[in-house]
Amino acid sequence: MENFTFYSPTEFVFGKDTENQAGKLVKRHGGSRVMIHYGGNSAKRSGLLDRVKASLEKEGVLFVELGGVKPNPRSGLVYEGIELCRNENIDFILAVGGGSTIDSAKAIAAGVLYDGDFWDFYNGKHVEKALPVGTILTIAAAGSEGSPDSVITKEEGMLKRGTGSDALRPKFSILNPALTETLPAFQSAAGITDIIAHLYERYLTNSKEVEVTDRLIEALLLTMKHEGPRVIADPHNYEARANIMWAGMMAHNNSCGVGRSQDWNSHTIEHELSALYDCAHGAGLAVTMPAVFKYVMDHDVNRFAKVAVRVWGCQMDFDHPEVTALEGIEALRNYLISIGMPKNFEELGAKEEDIPKLVEVLCRSEGRNGSISGFVTLNEDDCTKIYKMMV
Amino acid sequence: MENFTFYSPTEFVFGKDTENQAGKLVKRHGGSRVMIHYGGNSAKRSGLLDRVKASLEKEGVLFVELGGVKPNPRSGLVYEGIELCRNENIDFILAVGGGSTIDSAKAIAAGVLYDGDFWDFYNGKHVEKALPVGTILTIAAAGSEGSPDSVITKEEGMLKRGTGSDALRPKFSILNPALTETLPAFQSAAGITDIIAHLYERYLTNSKEVEVTDRLIEALLLTMKHEGPRVIADPHNYEARANIMWAGMMAHNNSCGVGRSQDWNSHTIEHELSALYDCAHGAGLAVTMPAVFKYVMDHDVNRFAKVAVRVWGCQMDFDHPEVTALEGIEALRNYLISIGMPKNFEELGAKEEDIPKLVEVLCRSEGRNGSISGFVTLNEDDCTKIYKMMV
Repeated sequence: MENFTFYSPTEFVFGKDTENQAGKLVKRHGGSRVMIHYGGNSAKRSGLLDRVKASLEKEGVLFVELGGVKPNPRSGLVYEGIELCRNENIDFILAVGGGSTIDSAKAIAAGVLYDGDFWDFYNGKHVEKALPVGTILTIAAAGSEGSPDSVITKEEGMLKRGTGSDALRPKFSILNPALTETLPAFQSAAGITDIIAHLYERYLTNSKEVEVTDRLIEALLLTMKHEGPRVIADPHNYEARANIMWAGMMAHNNSCGVGRSQDWNSHTIEHELSALYDCAHGAGLAVTMPAVFKYVMDHDVNRFAKVAVRVWGCQMDFDHPEVTALEGIEALRNYLISIGMPKNFEELGAKEEDIPKLVEVLCRSEGRNGSISGFVTLNEDDCTKIYKMMV
Repeated sequence: MENFTFYSPTEFVFGKDTENQAGKLVKRHGGSRVMIHYGGNSAKRSGLLDRVKASLEKEGVLFVELGGVKPNPRSGLVYEGIELCRNENIDFILAVGGGSTIDSAKAIAAGVLYDGDFWDFYNGKHVEKALPVGTILTIAAAGSEGSPDSVITKEEGMLKRGTGSDALRPKFSILNPALTETLPAFQSAAGITDIIAHLYERYLTNSKEVEVTDRLIEALLLTMKHEGPRVIADPHNYEARANIMWAGMMAHNNSCGVGRSQDWNSHTIEHELSALYDCAHGAGLAVTMPAVFKYVMDHDVNRFAKVAVRVWGCQMDFDHPEVTALEGIEALRNYLISIGMPKNFEELGAKEEDIPKLVEVLCRSEGRNGSISGFVTLNEDDCTKIYKMMV
């Protein structure tokens, strides 16, 4: 196991009706002038936004609103948010939504206290300070509610890039599983896929002797395997929603990823797909992961066999571990298809002829040097082959 | 799953040589006048205390020392520590040791800022504020390095009682697995047993639909099952020590115990043993757990069968789940014996004739009303039978 630091100071308030505690939590964490940040109209229509505002008003917390966050959140709205916060002397940002809204809120929070262009942070500069952020989560997926991470897409060149800093960890996150019951099945499934991807990205490690985190990751994968289909079969299954929501947070606050190298090549390869086609990140991952895993599995066949046996219930083929490894990848793929995820480029809305362009941006754009690194280092030729496997 | 709040703001610094960061961490968390709290001479002999002092001196942090913490830490030293902190205007307590030292440090931290008798907190009063505490852990066991809990024994009547408050969560905890390599095998095994007990106390729940936390607890039990014997076979196995150390923290910071009722009857029943005989808490738990589990297993046979199958590798007897349940309890007992833990009253140094006295203190002393509650409520008759099963 490698040396590490783990710091997850977010206060998680979990369960039914917890959004009504928003006002008290903002106040306790030092907020008096809040920008409520949200996405489309669903938060309005469902009455969630009204309940949140009532909770703030009850505590005498002032607020302004900035809606309009889109999936794969854009830099344009971040600049708008930074200006609004400065003009209104905002001291706390409350994100009401999913990973996109929370990531956008984090970008604004960092940008408000920075003299330069906030994009610098998505280009390698470390975030030293940021306005405090609180979240009210409406989809179990990105794990941004408990993570130090944020991913933003820059319209110019459609660059999708991430940053991470403890300064961006939310002060509090309200997790009410009931808020996710009205999600369309496709979005629920995309969220489930994203959580599973966060677990695989940590599972694929080159570190040795990491049994405790291996086992924790497997535990969360087993949970997703069990609860995912229950949510798809019955969107109003509160208990299944609750188990997935806590698994989604635990999958990404890094308590199960410490002390080990991690992969993240599937995320990096997928980001080009959602940036170009504006598809759901989870849907892109469903197509990307099996291809990447098949391409790299020879690097550590036993690791893939282990997850196949321990999570997917495959029988170990001791004479041919590569058979078991492949069986586990197929089991993952079939699981993702069974919950409604796309299985190839066509179903995703991606085009084979775009592959050279995808690889060019992936390996040659701003901050990249001809390859991407993770569990295995992949060059342009590797990435081309992987994209072709998805067709 | 039940509603819950989870808040674990401790900064964990994990790995080799991390004790040399003590000075920087104290300073970063606001300490300028520190009381170093420790146990016996091992921290001195090993040179650990010297390294810690050097680290504090390097950062210009002033310090006084208070050693002498014993296993099952006593109220007498807590009073002494409170007085010392007040006389020396201490603003930070640094615990260098195991659960006993950390628990004693937490008691002092709460007592310094309280006008009344600190024992009030161990008798039901909630701790609202405390001096900041940092820890340097020297045994993986109690989980106090990441928990809000503290257990102290009051000399008068040998009452062993606990308290819990987020105000008592350490600001930082330094976890260097190498520091545990010099522990005697018996102490390592007692620590392993304590960690396993923290997991079982959470596993035994009356809450329904808690798959995610069930799976996380099982993951940590599987880790302990795998790594425990490796540490006993080779005390210098750093990797096994490291996996156990992180499992010990995760077992007790409650990330795997949220949203569910918990048991804690084994701990409560054991506390009377270590209070009366001054035995190692883990050793007492090794004798207590199998007896308690056999006594209560009919309350939820399938839960005991589940842990038997998923953790101990038993085959499910679908016609007689109680057979599988019992097999799992026996597997746990055999595991504990195999790492060197006592199996009955005699090996523990306890006496059958003391049972009436044990039950009297357990069920009738200060704050108790004739029974103890948890997974199952146990009255004096139940507790008598359980103690007799341990003979």
